Amino acid sequence: MEDELQDILHTEIPITRAMGIRVVQATSQSVTLSAPLQNNRNHKHTAFGGSLYSVAVLSGWGLLYLFLRERGISAHIVIQESRVFYSRPVTDVIIATCSLESAPAHERFLKAFVRNGKARMELSSRILQNGQEAVRFEGKYVIHR
Amino acid sequence: MEDELQDILHTEIPITRAMGIRVVQATSQSVTLSAPLQNNRNHKHTAFGGSLYSVAVLSGWGLLYLFLRERGISAHIVIQESRVFYSRPVTDVIIATCSLESAPAHERFLKAFVRNGKARMELSSRILQNGQEAVRFEGKYVIHR
Repeated sequence: MEDELQDILHTEIPITRAMGIRVVQATSQSVTLSAPLQNNRNHKHTAFGGSLYSVAVLSGWGLLYLFLRERGISAHIVIQESRVFYSRPVTDVIIATCSLESAPAHERFLKAFVRNGKARMELSSRILQNGQEAVRFEGKYVIHR
Repeated sequence: MEDELQDILHTEIPITRAMGIRVVQATSQSVTLSAPLQNNRNHKHTAFGGSLYSVAVLSGWGLLYLFLRERGISAHIVIQESRVFYSRPVTDVIIATCSLESAPAHERFLKAFVRNGKARMELSSRILQNGQEAVRFEGKYVIHR
């Protein structure tokens, strides 16, 4: 699924090519994306906050895409609202992971979509640096027909 | 000041060149940045949420940079935390504006920096689409020596 998701990202959101975003691992339970520091550095040779955000928001988008596809659901996925906390600078490759957590919430999400043609899911992504959290991202995504 | 800020952005954060970010207007009171939709589109031919975030966070960064420079202060400026609300899709050029609001808050900010070598300022940016708010960004920036 890694190659497929990477093709989708590079084709449908072209700036991801310039950012050098790659899909490290992708299942319908967890997605990990990477991006090289060089393409995304700032003036202090750490990762630019906007790039960190982009890699994080796309890890959630990719996870929702695969989660829905596994269930045969075709829907638009958009980010509605998000928060991001930068606790440490990222001085090496950016690696963001988003994983599904609560199964009951997913059932409610799918039921809402079937009933209303629209549903909302909250996902969080993390970027680690030397094993410690550097960035935490919390996003509210909306899917709709 | 527009050319100077644009050079700084393009040199120090190279992904801003791929995004096509331009400085439309820049003073120590207000900064407006733009980015073409084409470089920053998503699969629905609206602006990618990560690009919207990047243009917004940089409008605040640029404003703080000019605000400090006007006062002869050289400091590192980093984003610590932010929230972003997407209320409408952006279907044309991305234009983000960040303006200073409360003068008393700025005085406290400058005093804190002189005293502690570190200070925090909250700034908000807006992206309009046909005169209506499409994206609201709220960022907490930290400056330090």
